[in-house]
Amino acid sequence: FESKLPNLGTSIFSQMTALANQFDAINLSQGFPEFDAPELLKKQLNHYVLEGVNQYSPSSGVPRLQQQIAQLVKRKYAAEIDATQQVTVTSGATEALFVAIQALVREGDEVIVFDPAYDSYQPAIELAGGKSVNIALHAPDYAIDWQAVTEAVNSKTRAIIINTPHNPSGKTLKQHDINALKALVSKHDLYVISDEVYEHITFDNQPHLSVLRDAELFARSFVISSFGKTFHSTGWKMGYCIAPVALAVEFRKIHQYVTFSSFTPAQHALADMLEQQGEHVDELREFYQQKRDVLSNALKESRFTILPSEGTYFLLLDYSNVSDLNDVEFCQWLVEQAGVAAIPLSVFYQQPSNDKVIRLCFAKHDATLLQAAEILCQL
Amino acid sequence: FESKLPNLGTSIFSQMTALANQFDAINLSQGFPEFDAPELLKKQLNHYVLEGVNQYSPSSGVPRLQQQIAQLVKRKYAAEIDATQQVTVTSGATEALFVAIQALVREGDEVIVFDPAYDSYQPAIELAGGKSVNIALHAPDYAIDWQAVTEAVNSKTRAIIINTPHNPSGKTLKQHDINALKALVSKHDLYVISDEVYEHITFDNQPHLSVLRDAELFARSFVISSFGKTFHSTGWKMGYCIAPVALAVEFRKIHQYVTFSSFTPAQHALADMLEQQGEHVDELREFYQQKRDVLSNALKESRFTILPSEGTYFLLLDYSNVSDLNDVEFCQWLVEQAGVAAIPLSVFYQQPSNDKVIRLCFAKHDATLLQAAEILCQL
Ligand SMILES: CSCCC(=O)C(=O)O
Ligand SMILES: CSCCC(=O)C(=O)O
Repeated sequence: FESKLPNLGTSIFSQMTALANQFDAINLSQGFPEFDAPELLKKQLNHYVLEGVNQYSPSSGVPRLQQQIAQLVKRKYAAEIDATQQVTVTSGATEALFVAIQALVREGDEVIVFDPAYDSYQPAIELAGGKSVNIALHAPDYAIDWQAVTEAVNSKTRAIIINTPHNPSGKTLKQHDINALKALVSKHDLYVISDEVYEHITFDNQPHLSVLRDAELFARSFVISSFGKTFHSTGWKMGYCIAPVALAVEFRKIHQYVTFSSFTPAQHALADMLEQQGEHVDELREFYQQKRDVLSNALKESRFTILPSEGTYFLLLDYSNVSDLNDVEFCQWLVEQAGVAAIPLSVFYQQPSNDKVIRLCFAKHDATLLQAAEILCQL
Repeated sequence: FESKLPNLGTSIFSQMTALANQFDAINLSQGFPEFDAPELLKKQLNHYVLEGVNQYSPSSGVPRLQQQIAQLVKRKYAAEIDATQQVTVTSGATEALFVAIQALVREGDEVIVFDPAYDSYQPAIELAGGKSVNIALHAPDYAIDWQAVTEAVNSKTRAIIINTPHNPSGKTLKQHDINALKALVSKHDLYVISDEVYEHITFDNQPHLSVLRDAELFARSFVISSFGKTFHSTGWKMGYCIAPVALAVEFRKIHQYVTFSSFTPAQHALADMLEQQGEHVDELREFYQQKRDVLSNALKESRFTILPSEGTYFLLLDYSNVSDLNDVEFCQWLVEQAGVAAIPLSVFYQQPSNDKVIRLCFAKHDATLLQAAEILCQL
């Protein structure tokens, strides 16, 4: 059977988690928290399930949840959006990304992607008949050279995918990045897909510069987020897309034929959670900053070079002083021989990358982080 | 914004449910049960949520659920499948259909679809760059003319989508249909997508002729089902796809970039449900046959002509004796003026259809069905 995605296999996240389980290693690879979802959220989910709210929700989401999302966006980004028309609930951010890409990308279109990039962008673009144009960013600062981006734009360019805070580097876009992006997309009439699933996890008092803060930029954007990272519930697969009405119409058209709707009781529970304990989202920064610092401090005496993490729950390490292996081999060795699972950075690049960098997820109990650090310090 | 699906708007199911709510009508339109999910299923869901099983499942599903699905298939269809490699859990049958179509259909491919057809097939084929070739079946018996199907096959034909028991007609495929299908697809090297979401709802002692019963036919098929209809939980959006290994590999590749995985605690709860009360699925036939009979009997004195329903939870009515309106206008009138929401059959056809037929969902309490019938008897 001839594959449409001949160069792709099982996702690195699935592979590394399977290896971590097989070798009983500390799993700092796939990004998911070791903490549980908030009690209120779980309690409310159970409430709606027992009450019998178990049939289809509207395709674009439970209205109460759409409203709560609009209010969150208003409070955090001073953005006024129409909940009914502009917010679409999806089965995770992955579905939202897939649908936004399907909505935008036509046969022959090009999409600018910054590498290292989340692994679903590329296949989604290809399945839509498009081609990604990958601009590589590198350690230590992963800064975007907007001049290079401008040069990559041509008549086939349809969209740019940004991701801030950035998985895997933890880099956040700055105001000058947003300005450059805005100038570029309006000049060339491009669309933006903004993956903001780590929106509530930025460190050192940096604000999250959501595309929603800028009405002009938002006017050509799909803004995608999710509750998995925000409420420690990655297995609930609840995400959403916010878009200007014209784009939301097309997004919804496609969404209704991709999944139609998402787990109904969870949508009601999330609405309650946002309504009653919305401040939880503001506590994540401090919570995860402390985690980042626990891991970084514990690795200070190691031979790894710690790269800066401005957001997300990931930390990059340069292992040039530790091993001569390439990053895939090094991660293989690490999980099998040292008992720590990490993600090799090169898998996030379309063009071969020789950087000797690995990604660790620090959404774990301090004890887990310290145990992993102790192992890494011995290498 | 130029739409990729210019002829499509909001799905008829969403539209009619919205109208039913607006006019406070009895909603027999969108297919969902008025009954709640089984207590055990709800209890187990709550158990796993509280226990903290809230992070990503493996992309192809929780292994225990894959195993239970394989056992169900073995018990019902005497089919031996490898749970680990062949069963993929999806976010509803809609996602499974979308992914199977993405896996098969390439730019320029043709897919044979029998109209009336479920509304997601067509846009999924178009988004994959393919073209549907629609063969219209009509009231009262909706029989397939396999000679016409054979004539529709050409070098571009890639796949045939079948749906048994059939939504909206309630028709079930017979052994001669399966034989004709098998001969056709092996002769022309085609693939089959078999939508079997109503597999447990067949009436009058008719067996469900799953594609899984026939190893040769299954070897070129994606078999899709879901738990929404089976466990009165359409809002949980839990489906799955069973395929031969080579096809499952491609299906999984795409699935991991469409939704990645589905609601984890529900997967565990479904595994428990199938393990402990698997016989529930065998009780559906009698349960829904009684519903069908309640509605049909109550409509005997009406001016509607009742068409046969061999399965699903839908009943078709010919309203030629009741109104001269076309079916869309008639359903509009019915929900606004008479207080009953139904689905017009023509929306399931690509080519204009003048049949005067509407679809009623009888997955409702007897009182609801009798109340609707009382109204319809007055027309
Ligand atoms: C859907 S599995 C990937 C989880 C994740 O976001 C990551 O590890 O980067
Ligand atoms: C996903 S909404 C449609 C429900 C259904 O299967 C039907 O009404 O035919």
